[in-house]
Amino acid sequence: MSNGHPFETELDRNGANYVPLTPVSFLTRAASAFAEKVAVIDGARRYTYRQLLDRCTRLASALAKLGVGRLDTVAIIASNIPEMIEAHFAVPMLGAVLNPLNTRLDAANIAFSLKHGSAKVLIVDGDYGKVVREALSQVERDIIVVDIAVPEEPASAIGKYGYEEMLAAADPAFTWTGITDEWQSLALLYTSGTTGDPKGVVYSHRGAYLSALGNGLCFGLGFDSIYLWTLPMFHCCGWSYPWAVVAVGGTQVCLRKVEPPLIFRLIAEHRVTHLCGAPIVLNMLSHAPAEQRVRFDHVVSVATGGAAPPSAVFRSMEALGFRVVHLYGATETYGPATSCVFQAEWNELPDDQRFARMARQGVAYPMVDDVQVADPKTMASVPRDGETVGEIMVRSNTVMKGYLKNKAATAKTLVDGWCLSGDLAVWHADGAIEIKDRSKDIIISGGENISSLEVEEVLTQHPAVMLAAVVARPDAKWGETPCAFVELKPGASKPDDAEVFAFCKSRLARFKVPKTLVFGPLPKTSTGKIQKFLLREQVKSLEKTQS
Amino acid sequence: MSNGHPFETELDRNGANYVPLTPVSFLTRAASAFAEKVAVIDGARRYTYRQLLDRCTRLASALAKLGVGRLDTVAIIASNIPEMIEAHFAVPMLGAVLNPLNTRLDAANIAFSLKHGSAKVLIVDGDYGKVVREALSQVERDIIVVDIAVPEEPASAIGKYGYEEMLAAADPAFTWTGITDEWQSLALLYTSGTTGDPKGVVYSHRGAYLSALGNGLCFGLGFDSIYLWTLPMFHCCGWSYPWAVVAVGGTQVCLRKVEPPLIFRLIAEHRVTHLCGAPIVLNMLSHAPAEQRVRFDHVVSVATGGAAPPSAVFRSMEALGFRVVHLYGATETYGPATSCVFQAEWNELPDDQRFARMARQGVAYPMVDDVQVADPKTMASVPRDGETVGEIMVRSNTVMKGYLKNKAATAKTLVDGWCLSGDLAVWHADGAIEIKDRSKDIIISGGENISSLEVEEVLTQHPAVMLAAVVARPDAKWGETPCAFVELKPGASKPDDAEVFAFCKSRLARFKVPKTLVFGPLPKTSTGKIQKFLLREQVKSLEKTQS
Repeated sequence: MSNGHPFETELDRNGANYVPLTPVSFLTRAASAFAEKVAVIDGARRYTYRQLLDRCTRLASALAKLGVGRLDTVAIIASNIPEMIEAHFAVPMLGAVLNPLNTRLDAANIAFSLKHGSAKVLIVDGDYGKVVREALSQVERDIIVVDIAVPEEPASAIGKYGYEEMLAAADPAFTWTGITDEWQSLALLYTSGTTGDPKGVVYSHRGAYLSALGNGLCFGLGFDSIYLWTLPMFHCCGWSYPWAVVAVGGTQVCLRKVEPPLIFRLIAEHRVTHLCGAPIVLNMLSHAPAEQRVRFDHVVSVATGGAAPPSAVFRSMEALGFRVVHLYGATETYGPATSCVFQAEWNELPDDQRFARMARQGVAYPMVDDVQVADPKTMASVPRDGETVGEIMVRSNTVMKGYLKNKAATAKTLVDGWCLSGDLAVWHADGAIEIKDRSKDIIISGGENISSLEVEEVLTQHPAVMLAAVVARPDAKWGETPCAFVELKPGASKPDDAEVFAFCKSRLARFKVPKTLVFGPLPKTSTGKIQKFLLREQVKSLEKTQS
Repeated sequence: MSNGHPFETELDRNGANYVPLTPVSFLTRAASAFAEKVAVIDGARRYTYRQLLDRCTRLASALAKLGVGRLDTVAIIASNIPEMIEAHFAVPMLGAVLNPLNTRLDAANIAFSLKHGSAKVLIVDGDYGKVVREALSQVERDIIVVDIAVPEEPASAIGKYGYEEMLAAADPAFTWTGITDEWQSLALLYTSGTTGDPKGVVYSHRGAYLSALGNGLCFGLGFDSIYLWTLPMFHCCGWSYPWAVVAVGGTQVCLRKVEPPLIFRLIAEHRVTHLCGAPIVLNMLSHAPAEQRVRFDHVVSVATGGAAPPSAVFRSMEALGFRVVHLYGATETYGPATSCVFQAEWNELPDDQRFARMARQGVAYPMVDDVQVADPKTMASVPRDGETVGEIMVRSNTVMKGYLKNKAATAKTLVDGWCLSGDLAVWHADGAIEIKDRSKDIIISGGENISSLEVEEVLTQHPAVMLAAVVARPDAKWGETPCAFVELKPGASKPDDAEVFAFCKSRLARFKVPKTLVFGPLPKTSTGKIQKFLLREQVKSLEKTQS
């Protein structure tokens, strides 16, 4: 380091002033600072920070005994239970790689992940024993399986080891190795990709640490925060919240299933202050029957992402006492990369305009170095005119290291110092980004671009409509026309096609009005996103039927 | 990087996923995200984030034209004005080193810093023109001086360049070099050391970035925060707040002098949400006459550090609508390293016990890797018994790189992976650290240790006492006895010595009661700390007088 300049002489990194960034440090700090504070609540179970550190230390010790070491993959399939939080600390303690699997995947997909990620150990929540057993039969290799017991179903165990038994027998004084290089891989997350094989997104310790600090700062987490687990933890490591809540010494409330009555009850019972979830979760809360709701007299901050919430969702959530903030990101960006920071002057706007502002993707997170909307050919930023469409690009320490064993896909996504999102957006004069569509979701009709999002927003304003998805339908005359798939609210009776068309006509330019309407439940991915590729296939079969 | 392991192959750092941490990125992000939001207020002056970035870019450009480049030192002596904030971004933009000088220093001390730090450029707030002119005459080297004009005193200019003129002529499209190594030196801060030459503490870009994020998270800063500059910005780079407020897109309100009437007026006028300051500032606010106070109807969060606030200060600050949190740290730790996080159960305690809890130094900050109270001989932690005294030690990315050109002092302070504080403390069962004294401030009387802090706390409970400082007085029989220096509240009449002794006796063990009482104003350092070394000298002269 020393090159003779006084500012580079005898001022090197040492053990006192340089510590590799890792989210594990949040737990050791919280356990030292707030040992007796409740860290995790799961039904009747309560773990203090002292106990959480003890359980994580024991899990790390037990995994080490099973042979897990540096860069070995530990897969876990579990709902949002304490063991899932524990894995987020214990596995990184060993310098191993955590691979949380999507609980809604089928056996073939699970098998693919286990094979591609070379899982050495798989921790299985008993609720998923059956599908995992099937998946394991498709893997031509022995994987060490650890069962998280489901007391009601002792037969669900499929492995050689029991989680609690392992912890009980483990060394509470175990000294884990940790890491020396903060760039070391920490987690592996398979994208739920709509086509082709899933891609394995790799996170680093450094990225996870910064993502947790940034999320905590942006969402206003503090020592008194009570965080409810409505977001699947397998999704982008729960957007870093297993770590972020620990960083501030807050409390995490577990939740096995997204069921509105239970969510309302837990919010009231524990005075939950923060929760995250896809708009679909907000939709469920908004449409929960009155008798399922429990009144609470405090404001709950809700972060949502994955798709822009329709104005109807903002409206109903506000009425229920939630303060909703819209985030945008992807698995490739550790979850949120932008946040639609609320501007005080929006309070002066009529509701619809206010909700439209709030539905934008917003601005870069504090720990994100830069976000731009740019022409992917020239990489030049588009003007901030709210009209010119470009691709959203992110540059950040919270951008993935790359896709595992997929150089080609990595090279297509991390380009010239930017992470390409594949999302098309405009840039507004006030700095906020607004998505117009996924590149592949834009509908081009008679040479005009139609944003499927814009049409969907109008459809969901219809009183009978809960969800809408609009895709392109090939058309001999126009090239493409918008085809709308509509899921109705529970109990709503199906409106006339003509009435819906008229509703759209009064709110949209003529060429944007859907030419086709299909009613029925919409197919969703395991993370709650509407699977437009399935709808496109449905459109194809529509053509066949009619041709 | 690639050693054949899949998790270390084709997953290297690149421009999209690795960005050296630097607080400059907070400004570019804020200017992109919140261009038209007010970033800085100074009297009638207002700068939006767009303007702040423009001014910083111009300043960087102008400094580059003056020859400032990588690792060159730019010193600045200024009160808490916008130019001081600008320097905190513009100088790091060039990879140069910012050296904020204490405005309360005399010419000899300023000259020492300019010589030792090899300042290439010195930016001078006109208010300090006179002392700086004298200091420059003591430096046998030409330093480029840039004047920040004071409109009321045009004659105060002492340099060749004018700040505003330079900015007006500068290139607004200047592309600064930035840094490629986040460990690069960013700032140089001379400690106000009580004896010997000042030491030059060196900060890195990485440390400053993490300190800003950690402070923002810990103090609850957000987009709506209005931060008032009651803390000198030359003190630990204003504890990183010039950067932290920008990280969240908040607003900074400048303040030239710590004058209670003005502070109250600014709090009410701008609805200030956060401010920091030494307990002496809180003391001034507490004792401001009623007619100087302006009522405000919101809660203001106040972070204080440098010494534990006496319970009387907590009490009066609460009554005025402030929520006080006590922090602990040093220049060597970028300011705060611990925070006395308020525990809800303390609300059940009687005021005195609650204030005693709140006066403790507390627990590690989220971005601090570890804090311990340990035996400096063995480096072993003391038990958490609230009794065993050890030295506070910190390990963190927010520990200084070291002292500039002072290997010996660095080696004495950064030892075995810890930054030694020189402060003696106990560790409580609940995880909180409580300072008993600076090692050199402990009074040993008849073999018993007396904490000067404990005696001072009792003295300040006396209705007539505003400040108290207790030092050791050599004593033939006891070795040392406590000697108390007392500054009375404005307008309070001097109490009887006997009455004060009796007051202490009813609240302290007999051997802890001061044997000597001296009334009068206390000498304070430029950062508001009481200068005990001067009191010790006074004690010596006391001996001479009496002997």
